[in-house]
Amino acid sequence: MEKMKRAERMVAITQVLMLKPNVLTPLTLFAERFGTAKSTISEDLMAVKGSLLLSGQGHLETISGASGGVRYIPGIPTEEATQFLSKLAERLSDKERILAGGFLYMTDILFDPAILRPLGLIFAGAFRDKLPDVVVTIETKGIPLALVTAEALGLPMVVIRSGNKVTEGSAVSINYVSGSSRRIQTMSLSRRALEPQRRVLVIDDFMKAGGTALGIKNLMAEFEANVVGIGVLVEDRMTAEPKLVEGYLSLLQLKELDMFTGKTSVVPVNTD
Amino acid sequence: MEKMKRAERMVAITQVLMLKPNVLTPLTLFAERFGTAKSTISEDLMAVKGSLLLSGQGHLETISGASGGVRYIPGIPTEEATQFLSKLAERLSDKERILAGGFLYMTDILFDPAILRPLGLIFAGAFRDKLPDVVVTIETKGIPLALVTAEALGLPMVVIRSGNKVTEGSAVSINYVSGSSRRIQTMSLSRRALEPQRRVLVIDDFMKAGGTALGIKNLMAEFEANVVGIGVLVEDRMTAEPKLVEGYLSLLQLKELDMFTGKTSVVPVNTD
Repeated sequence: MEKMKRAERMVAITQVLMLKPNVLTPLTLFAERFGTAKSTISEDLMAVKGSLLLSGQGHLETISGASGGVRYIPGIPTEEATQFLSKLAERLSDKERILAGGFLYMTDILFDPAILRPLGLIFAGAFRDKLPDVVVTIETKGIPLALVTAEALGLPMVVIRSGNKVTEGSAVSINYVSGSSRRIQTMSLSRRALEPQRRVLVIDDFMKAGGTALGIKNLMAEFEANVVGIGVLVEDRMTAEPKLVEGYLSLLQLKELDMFTGKTSVVPVNTD
Repeated sequence: MEKMKRAERMVAITQVLMLKPNVLTPLTLFAERFGTAKSTISEDLMAVKGSLLLSGQGHLETISGASGGVRYIPGIPTEEATQFLSKLAERLSDKERILAGGFLYMTDILFDPAILRPLGLIFAGAFRDKLPDVVVTIETKGIPLALVTAEALGLPMVVIRSGNKVTEGSAVSINYVSGSSRRIQTMSLSRRALEPQRRVLVIDDFMKAGGTALGIKNLMAEFEANVVGIGVLVEDRMTAEPKLVEGYLSLLQLKELDMFTGKTSVVPVNTD
């Protein structure tokens, strides 16, 4: 490859690192690829680091030593996160979203990559210092949210199945009472899907009474897992009843959903 | 903000564009943010474009005119895609993956963001010129694959539900025979989840006889949708029977899975 100029190398380095968030790349890889000295790459990286810092959108982390290198840690500035959640709350507070049974239609939001990506960055920022090993969710609607969070943290995802339909070798099943249906349900997880004693971050789309989250905590105990955090997108706050789990983080709160007047109110948690 | 140097601006531009793949950003946004003339931004973009071209990992697309701008189109070089699929095939050809009933354990792969991301880029590259409006899948295991494909194409995702559990207003349900279970099953999609007459790309993790894919095609017909492509990660090729659908793209083929000898063979499609 023809020798690149510094600015070109800086762009190429930014691209390589952003394509593999959280992955440590040794400096020698860049030195070989660009045919330059490692010291030149170090200088390039300092400049890239400074430039990325200006945006507040994620930063470079350098680890020195023989097994060291550099990685891109994705992030979202607090102000941008706040604005994004405000807009999302407004979008969810639309009477057209009221479904029969007093539910809120959120599926379009939960399956839209452009909305999911910032949500994953927000959850990742909130839980990174809890050092989770894996992101756990329960099918179906929470899966994309858990996936983008896992990717922002550089972790794998594990999906608990509803019912008993696990066909993947021996599985652990537990019964739980979902707050939204008030019925006894079953959730299962294959033994091979999760090693024992992992640090688990639980991510889900909605919490009503917390019955599902409590079920997940109980199931995780069967895997000797340590639940280091629980994050939900929307928390039902229409009743004052305490939830069945504590210490969770919700980004939005559903304050009102009146099927007769059509009034719906979803608000960001920190503006409450 | 202090005036930035060209190299710094180029890095910042790369970051902004890569954070929002497929989204058109007007040049004026950069000009305002960096306090420079639009012509300077144009020159920066030319240099960024050239630098990104060298990696083959996605490129910039510029659209001129008043409503124009620039966007980052993610991509993966053919050689890298081939290597990635070879390694993945090898990893899947492990006798430890054989499950009771003659199934192949793929869940860890299907829920790992680091593996999903390149797969999404490969599917996106294969189907971009079919101009889909939306990526459709059926729960559960195909959801992450469909999501990363949707993101790489800049599209929303729609998830068909198994059974009749749709609680989102009026829904369309159809019966189908899944090749793997040979039982009659039901799939449903809420009317509000998919507008009529969309161009649909179907993505799923596994195809045995093609019964599920045929079911999805039939369900899509109820929404007057035009199925412009079908992509599956692994296709079962252990029998010579023709599939129930035609014109699909599979990335990997399962050639052998012998529960007695423990021999499993998964191969990339293009090395066949």
